[in-house]
Amino acid sequence: MSTEQNSAIQPDFEKEGGLLPAIAQDEITGEVLMLAWMNKEAWETTLSTGQAVYYSRSRKRLWPKGESSGHVQLVKSIRLDCDKDVILLGIEQIGRAACHTGRRTCFHKRVHNDQLIDEGEILFNPDEVYHSK
Amino acid sequence: MSTEQNSAIQPDFEKEGGLLPAIAQDEITGEVLMLAWMNKEAWETTLSTGQAVYYSRSRKRLWPKGESSGHVQLVKSIRLDCDKDVILLGIEQIGRAACHTGRRTCFHKRVHNDQLIDEGEILFNPDEVYHSK
Repeated sequence: MSTEQNSAIQPDFEKEGGLLPAIAQDEITGEVLMLAWMNKEAWETTLSTGQAVYYSRSRKRLWPKGESSGHVQLVKSIRLDCDKDVILLGIEQIGRAACHTGRRTCFHKRVHNDQLIDEGEILFNPDEVYHSK
Repeated sequence: MSTEQNSAIQPDFEKEGGLLPAIAQDEITGEVLMLAWMNKEAWETTLSTGQAVYYSRSRKRLWPKGESSGHVQLVKSIRLDCDKDVILLGIEQIGRAACHTGRRTCFHKRVHNDQLIDEGEILFNPDEVYHSK
């Protein structure tokens, strides 16, 4: 992946006040694993490192995915939508689980009639991964 | 799908100022077709009709997907993420193409080195679909 910050490929950060939604999808299986946010710096760091780096709106700083857990996302492809204001990353999820709950995908709450059903195996113990270091 | 507006399944519209990102994914193939936005009314209308209804930020009104083109999205599954502030719809795209450019997916701009490459067959003529009525 090029490290040059080429304007031709840059999303339209101006339009959305500097923060765009970025979807992480498993490059092979097509599973949608999470949605987070990117500012220009997160985008450029993602391009230059080849690993997904988001912007944490709560912590107000760059968030290299996996910085605590080690569960980084290796970027295999990058696509923009027709308006260039949404980013779609095709990734390989190291450690299998993208969600801080230990599940494979953050989208583990399925609407079933009038209930939300939690689905998906818990692949790691969040207490061990996030608080044992 | 239940038409009851049950609070147990409701996304956290409060947290994000009333507008949440909603990803439309082909229920069978896993292709991510588009991302749009939902407010509470769009969410409830999607639940009650079984077809994707978004909120158009530019037009500032509900946007039943396919209202002009006829290319509606039949909702097959609904998932929320761990924070309940992102919606993932598993859909069947009527007319094959979700994008207003006539392509299957809005995510047709692939980053390749320092270029954005437009991919994907154009499945309908936008001029005919949007302006001939």
